[in-house]
Amino acid sequence: MSEDAFEATIAAVREQVDPSPAERERLRSVADELVERTEAAATERVADADVVQVGSTARGTWTAGDRDIDVFVRFPTDIDRETLERYGLEVGRAVLPDGHEEYAEHPYVKGEYEGFDVDLVPCFRVDSATEIRSAVDRTPFHNAYLSERLDDDLAGDVRVAKAFCKGIGVYGSDLRTQGFSGYLVELLVLEYGGFRELVSAAADWHPQVELDPEDHGTRSFDDPLVVVDPTDHERNVAAVVSPTNVARFQHHARALLAEPDPERFEPRELEGLSPADVRNHLATRGTTPVAVRFDPPDVVEDQLWPQLRKSLSGVTDELDRRGFDTFRATALADETAALFVELAVAERPAVERHAGPPVHVRDHASGFYEKYGAMDETPPYGPFVDDDRYVVERERDCRTAAGFLRSDRLFDVALGAGVERALQDDYEVLVGDDVAVLAAEFGEDLAAYFSPRP
Amino acid sequence: MSEDAFEATIAAVREQVDPSPAERERLRSVADELVERTEAAATERVADADVVQVGSTARGTWTAGDRDIDVFVRFPTDIDRETLERYGLEVGRAVLPDGHEEYAEHPYVKGEYEGFDVDLVPCFRVDSATEIRSAVDRTPFHNAYLSERLDDDLAGDVRVAKAFCKGIGVYGSDLRTQGFSGYLVELLVLEYGGFRELVSAAADWHPQVELDPEDHGTRSFDDPLVVVDPTDHERNVAAVVSPTNVARFQHHARALLAEPDPERFEPRELEGLSPADVRNHLATRGTTPVAVRFDPPDVVEDQLWPQLRKSLSGVTDELDRRGFDTFRATALADETAALFVELAVAERPAVERHAGPPVHVRDHASGFYEKYGAMDETPPYGPFVDDDRYVVERERDCRTAAGFLRSDRLFDVALGAGVERALQDDYEVLVGDDVAVLAAEFGEDLAAYFSPRP
Repeated sequence: MSEDAFEATIAAVREQVDPSPAERERLRSVADELVERTEAAATERVADADVVQVGSTARGTWTAGDRDIDVFVRFPTDIDRETLERYGLEVGRAVLPDGHEEYAEHPYVKGEYEGFDVDLVPCFRVDSATEIRSAVDRTPFHNAYLSERLDDDLAGDVRVAKAFCKGIGVYGSDLRTQGFSGYLVELLVLEYGGFRELVSAAADWHPQVELDPEDHGTRSFDDPLVVVDPTDHERNVAAVVSPTNVARFQHHARALLAEPDPERFEPRELEGLSPADVRNHLATRGTTPVAVRFDPPDVVEDQLWPQLRKSLSGVTDELDRRGFDTFRATALADETAALFVELAVAERPAVERHAGPPVHVRDHASGFYEKYGAMDETPPYGPFVDDDRYVVERERDCRTAAGFLRSDRLFDVALGAGVERALQDDYEVLVGDDVAVLAAEFGEDLAAYFSPRP
Repeated sequence: MSEDAFEATIAAVREQVDPSPAERERLRSVADELVERTEAAATERVADADVVQVGSTARGTWTAGDRDIDVFVRFPTDIDRETLERYGLEVGRAVLPDGHEEYAEHPYVKGEYEGFDVDLVPCFRVDSATEIRSAVDRTPFHNAYLSERLDDDLAGDVRVAKAFCKGIGVYGSDLRTQGFSGYLVELLVLEYGGFRELVSAAADWHPQVELDPEDHGTRSFDDPLVVVDPTDHERNVAAVVSPTNVARFQHHARALLAEPDPERFEPRELEGLSPADVRNHLATRGTTPVAVRFDPPDVVEDQLWPQLRKSLSGVTDELDRRGFDTFRATALADETAALFVELAVAERPAVERHAGPPVHVRDHASGFYEKYGAMDETPPYGPFVDDDRYVVERERDCRTAAGFLRSDRLFDVALGAGVERALQDDYEVLVGDDVAVLAAEFGEDLAAYFSPRP
C-alpha cells in the first residue's frame, strides 16, 4: 500500500463528507436560535432548567448533508417524571409548533425548523451517567465527554469513519442493522487516535477486543467488541454490534489498507431482482425454497427485528430437527413480512426411525414394545432390536417442510410474541418457484441475499 | 405366567430336541469305534499320543438329529508343529480315507464315517488352557470342564437352551451371526443352574452382565455379556456376542416367560421377497435405496463378514457426512455380495456451504478470501461473512448417493481389504427400483430386512 494512496483516498472522501463553511455557519446559527428559544420556554416553567445541543451536529462530527439537530432540555431531579414529561412536551410544542410527539423511553417532540430535522427531548440533569433514570439522561454526558476531546482533526476522521461504516453496511445501532452507532464510531476514532489508526488496528483484531478509554470497567462481556462507556463503567457501547458486523469491519479495514479507494466508502447499490432472477438463482443453487409470509405485527422496528430473528431461528431449528437441513435463511420485512428459508432437503421418507428405550430398562422397554408391537399394519416396521434398544420405523407426520409450515406444529416452535399473534391471524406458505413472488416487494433484499458479500 | 405352562412348553421342546435312546446308542458305538481306530493310528506314530472325543456329542448336549462327532488327537508338546500337522493329517487320512483337509489354525481332516460328520483334529496336550499353542488346544479343557459338571438334567436344559437360541436366531459364534456358541450356552445353563433359571435371570439383565464361574477373571472387558472362561481367566467366552444379540436374548427370555409356547423355539421361516415385493416396501417407506453389488472376495465367511460390515460402515458414514442420511442398511452375501443402503435423502443442492477460517485469523482468512473471491462465475456464492467466519456456497461434487458411489471417491472410505480389491475389480451401482433385482438372490435376506423383529 502506498502511503499516498491511502491519504489521497481519505482526502477524496473528506471532499464528500466535510460540511462546507456555509453549511457549518448555517447550522450554527439555526442551532443557536433553537437553543435560545428552548431555554426561554424551559426556564419559564422551571427556573433552573437548562438546554444543551447534543449529537454529531453539536460536535462537528456530522457528515455533509445531515440535517439533524438534537436539543435536550435538562430538568432538575426534584421534579417528578410526569411533570418532566408534561413540561417536555409543552416546551417542544412551543418551539416546534408544527412538530409531533414521538416516544422513546418517554415522549418527546420531533419537528422541522428552518429546514432542519429537530428532536427536542426532555431529560433529568443527574450528577453522573451511572445515576440515570432513563437512557436519554445519558446523552448529555456522552456529548460532554466527546466535545472536550474531539479536535477538528479527529472530528474529520470521525466523519470518514462514519462514511466507511455506511459504505460497508455496518452503520447504525438499530436492531435490524446491529451495527456501529455514531457514538461508538467517535469513541473508536478517539481511542485509536484517528481513522487510519482505527482501521490498522481493526485489521489485526483478535476478538474479544476490549477498549476501556477511562480504564474503569468493572464487569465482563460476551460480545466480540467491547468499548466500555467512558461515562458508565458497566456499559458496553458496542453491545449491539453482531459478531458478523465486527468481522465485516475487520475484512473491509484490511481491504481498504490493501487497496485504498474512495469507492469503498460508497454503499453497494443493487438492482432489485425480478421474479425470473429469483427463479434463476434457485435453479443454479438447486435448493428447496419455502417462505412464510404474513402481515407484520404493529410494533416499532427495534421490536420487530428481534422478533423476526427469533421466529426465523425457531422455524429453521425445527426444520433442521425434522431433517430438512436449512441451507441459508433470512427474514424480510416491509409492507408484509416473510421468513424465507432455503432448504437442502426437499422430502423425507414416509417413515421415520424412532428409537425406544434400551431393552434392559424393563418397564419402559416393555411399554414401548407393547405399544408398537400391537399395531398390525405396516408401518410401523418393527419393533426390532438395534444395539441395545428397541427401534421402530413409524409413519412420519410431515414429509415436506411446507407440510410442517402449514400445520399447527408451526406454533410449537419459539416465535416472537408479535409474530406469533400475526401468524395466528393469517399466513401464507410459498413453496418452490412460487417464492419468486417475493421479488415484487423484496427485490433488493433478495438481490443482497443472492449476492452475499462481506 | 403359569408354572405349568412353562414346564409343559419345556417338555414339548424336549420331545423335539432329546435324542432317542436308539440315537444315543448308535452315536456312542460309532464314536467309540472312531476313538479306538484313531488311537491305533496315533500311537503308531507317537507312543504317548492320546485321543479324546469332544463337543456336544461327547457331553450328551447335542440336539436330536445332530450328526457331528469331534475327535481330538493330543500329541505331547515335545514334537514340533510341523510334525504335529503331518501326523495329524496322516492319522486323519488313515481313519477317514474319504475325508478332505480343512484348515482352522492348522490343518485337520473332515470326513463322513458311518453316516456321521467327523472332524479329526490334532492338537498339543498342554498342561493348562492358558498355555495353549493354538486355539484348538483349548477344546479338550472345555470338554473336561463341562463333562465333569453337566449331569443329565443340565444336559437336557442345554439342549433346550440351544433350541431357544436357534429359534430366536442368535445361535452360533461365527462372525456373520455374532451369537452364542454351544460352549457359551452350556456355561450359561451350568452357571445359572438350568434353562429356566437362565431365562429368568436374562429377563432382568443389566448389561454389562459378568459371570465368572471359577471366580478367577483378571481383566475387564467392554462387551455387554462377559463369561470368563473357566479354563482361561483372560478370555471372555461371550466376546463375539453382539449387543443386539444380547438384547434379543433378553427380549425373547421375557417373551417366553410371559407366554410360554413351543413355537418360540422354532426359527422364523420367511418367504423370499419377489422384486415386486421389494418395490412395494420401498414405495411404502418412501426411502431412496442404493446398492453396490460385486463379486465377493475369495475368503472364508469369518473373514468376509467383518470386512462386509467394515465396508458398509465406511460407506454409510461417508453418505451421512455428505448429507444423504442413511435410514437403514445391510450387507448381503451369497454368490454375489452387496452393500444395500436405504437413504432418507435423495438429492442435495447443487451448492454446498463451505465455512472458512474466522476472519480474525488473518493469514488463513485472507488465503480463503482470495481463493474464492477471485472466481468470477457463480457459484461460488460469496465469500461472505457469517458470524466470525468467511463462508462460500460452492459447487457440490456429488448431488446424489449414486453419483458418489460411482465415483473414485468410494475408495477414500474405509473398506475391508478383500472387499476393496473386489470393488477395484468391478462393481455395479443399483439405484431406486433397480435394487429390486437383488430379490432374485437375496429374497429371504430382504424379507427379514423388511420385516424386522427382535
